[in-house]
Amino acid sequence: MPGIKEPLLPVPGFSWLGENIGIKDGSLDFAVAFSEEVCIAAGVFTRNNFPGAPVVVGREHLRGGRLQAIAVNSKNANVATGPRGEQDARRVCDALGSALGIAPTLILPSSTGVIGVPLPVERLEAACGSAPERLAGGREALERFARAIMTTDTRPKGISFEVEGTTLTGVAKGAGMIEPHMATMLAFFFSDADLPATKLQAMLGRAVECSFNRISVDSDTSTSDTAIVMANGTGAKPSEARFEQALTDAALYLAQEIARDGEGATKLIELRVAEAASPAAALAIAKSIINSPLVKTAIYGADPNWGRFIMAIGKVFQHPVPLEGLRISFGAGGPDLTISAGEQSPAKLAKLAEYLKKAEIRIEVLLGQGDAAETVWGCDLTEGYVKENAEYTT
Amino acid sequence: MPGIKEPLLPVPGFSWLGENIGIKDGSLDFAVAFSEEVCIAAGVFTRNNFPGAPVVVGREHLRGGRLQAIAVNSKNANVATGPRGEQDARRVCDALGSALGIAPTLILPSSTGVIGVPLPVERLEAACGSAPERLAGGREALERFARAIMTTDTRPKGISFEVEGTTLTGVAKGAGMIEPHMATMLAFFFSDADLPATKLQAMLGRAVECSFNRISVDSDTSTSDTAIVMANGTGAKPSEARFEQALTDAALYLAQEIARDGEGATKLIELRVAEAASPAAALAIAKSIINSPLVKTAIYGADPNWGRFIMAIGKVFQHPVPLEGLRISFGAGGPDLTISAGEQSPAKLAKLAEYLKKAEIRIEVLLGQGDAAETVWGCDLTEGYVKENAEYTT
Repeated sequence: MPGIKEPLLPVPGFSWLGENIGIKDGSLDFAVAFSEEVCIAAGVFTRNNFPGAPVVVGREHLRGGRLQAIAVNSKNANVATGPRGEQDARRVCDALGSALGIAPTLILPSSTGVIGVPLPVERLEAACGSAPERLAGGREALERFARAIMTTDTRPKGISFEVEGTTLTGVAKGAGMIEPHMATMLAFFFSDADLPATKLQAMLGRAVECSFNRISVDSDTSTSDTAIVMANGTGAKPSEARFEQALTDAALYLAQEIARDGEGATKLIELRVAEAASPAAALAIAKSIINSPLVKTAIYGADPNWGRFIMAIGKVFQHPVPLEGLRISFGAGGPDLTISAGEQSPAKLAKLAEYLKKAEIRIEVLLGQGDAAETVWGCDLTEGYVKENAEYTT
Repeated sequence: MPGIKEPLLPVPGFSWLGENIGIKDGSLDFAVAFSEEVCIAAGVFTRNNFPGAPVVVGREHLRGGRLQAIAVNSKNANVATGPRGEQDARRVCDALGSALGIAPTLILPSSTGVIGVPLPVERLEAACGSAPERLAGGREALERFARAIMTTDTRPKGISFEVEGTTLTGVAKGAGMIEPHMATMLAFFFSDADLPATKLQAMLGRAVECSFNRISVDSDTSTSDTAIVMANGTGAKPSEARFEQALTDAALYLAQEIARDGEGATKLIELRVAEAASPAAALAIAKSIINSPLVKTAIYGADPNWGRFIMAIGKVFQHPVPLEGLRISFGAGGPDLTISAGEQSPAKLAKLAEYLKKAEIRIEVLLGQGDAAETVWGCDLTEGYVKENAEYTT
């Protein structure tokens, strides 16, 4: 079953908690991750011009490349909340730092949920004060952490890798307002690996670029996007290449989980645009297709309306493509499921309609122009998305 | 009732027809407009990199700035239909030209509907052959023309102006795959005014820029967008400024009608972004808001979730705006319905929720940066849009 990829491994030296403190309803809404040792840490954040207050404070705290704890709440993003927004984020760090006996600047604050509503900061301060006694190092606490950061997600998302005797565990949340730029939603990676502090940011940047920066649920870019990696160095010293590969694989898994769990989604779409003139052209065309409401609704309805792909490729004005060389391949491709403009048959369309009923749709668009390629992930657009978002705050 | 704005006036010297020739079902699907005199004409077409075959042929025929007839079919766009696509569009012009006794190059072919399916060209040739006997100059024929160009539109769209003793009548269709660039969907303007041929294209260009180029139903840009004006010069010689104003007003009315009749839409949204640093910034931010699925679903659900406006403004990375100066005004505005970041109250949200129940939503976003402004129109995103597009071809 998707969501958490088994086995989900706790990481030596880390402890977690996830609990309900009544921010909106009875679901888990407050989470803490704590490392006994100060960690080297790296992060990437939303490019939205209105970053949430916790993003502003988090960037500041990460400047030294060191973190020891993360305090997250869901159900309230603490974005566009005026001057008190940043004050509230700092009060949360102060309260948790005081309870844990560490500097507040070693804590990353993180909030996700409704925009524009002041944070219930006293409630969070109280929860921070009693947090140390409830932190635990096992799988159960880790999974509660992964659940407590959820908003409209239908399931927690997590994955672990063992890298040359060390453990890397990543958890993430995200289902709507998803077209990350620079980072996604919330993703947290924990490791006990002993890594060079100077390399961690670049490793995370590369891993995020090919994973979270390649998904879109609805073309909307959150104000809270954050991805963080913390390594406490208490374990072995793995090869950097092996660690970066594991970090990338974990980010790819979590990014696909976010697309699969898109609000209202019934299908995961994996789209590869190849034979492009440049990587920028491949990515622009891939984003145009994966974000097209008409492509997304056709896939939802298993409607073999491939003309909508033509439309979505053609509306990328800055990267024209000759219609003659264009092919669109579905699934394993082959002549049965490959379509070129001006060439179609009822039998082929019937096969395509059948293929589109699957829960995971793989599409390859071949442009016939060059050798650049990009892969992106998205989901279908359903009545469920509309219903969920027409009634989000009320 | 919206759609056709009364009185819809036939234009001296023009005749029309609209009929069913069985392209897909029993609805009207074939239309002709004919002028007894050769008209000066101007047109703007889609910027989609895969223009439909009729757009390619139509651009060619318009090169001389003269037209005498238009042949339109709905239910099939004749796009991505291989080399036969252009041949088919030319065969339609040949058949109609021969029946009317005019050069085929004086005919604009136009098709709208499903992409990628070959045109039933024999059926169209037969209909062209017998068209002259069914053309008529009255209101009824004009309205049948407006109905026959519809695809997913729920109603025909038309408007007329009298300009210093001449008549200008415009009709349009469009409901989905609507984010025109350069032109929209199909819009046809007929006039008996005596106008300078050299000015008509610029007049149309300016009228289209502030009307059809300012609407979006779903951010998808059709491969068939076409707007044409034909003036037969048999009437008076109005002032160019007055004529252009009427053309602009007609285009604005039809553009708003297209947004109001967006697929599945229940609400028309008029959005003005003002106090921007530049017109480009105002337009980019307006387009980001009007295309945001999360803004559109919130308006559908009358959910006062104004934080989504913040998100949509902030994701225009290239035009940062200070959050401090930003205000969002709904309806007539005033303190009751104006929201700034960090300042909200339950009473204000309740008033906003009440306002959002209206069928026409007017929003002004004030950026506090400069004096540029742009206005755009769109619609809400509903389950109806998803349902309609999940089942479009099947």
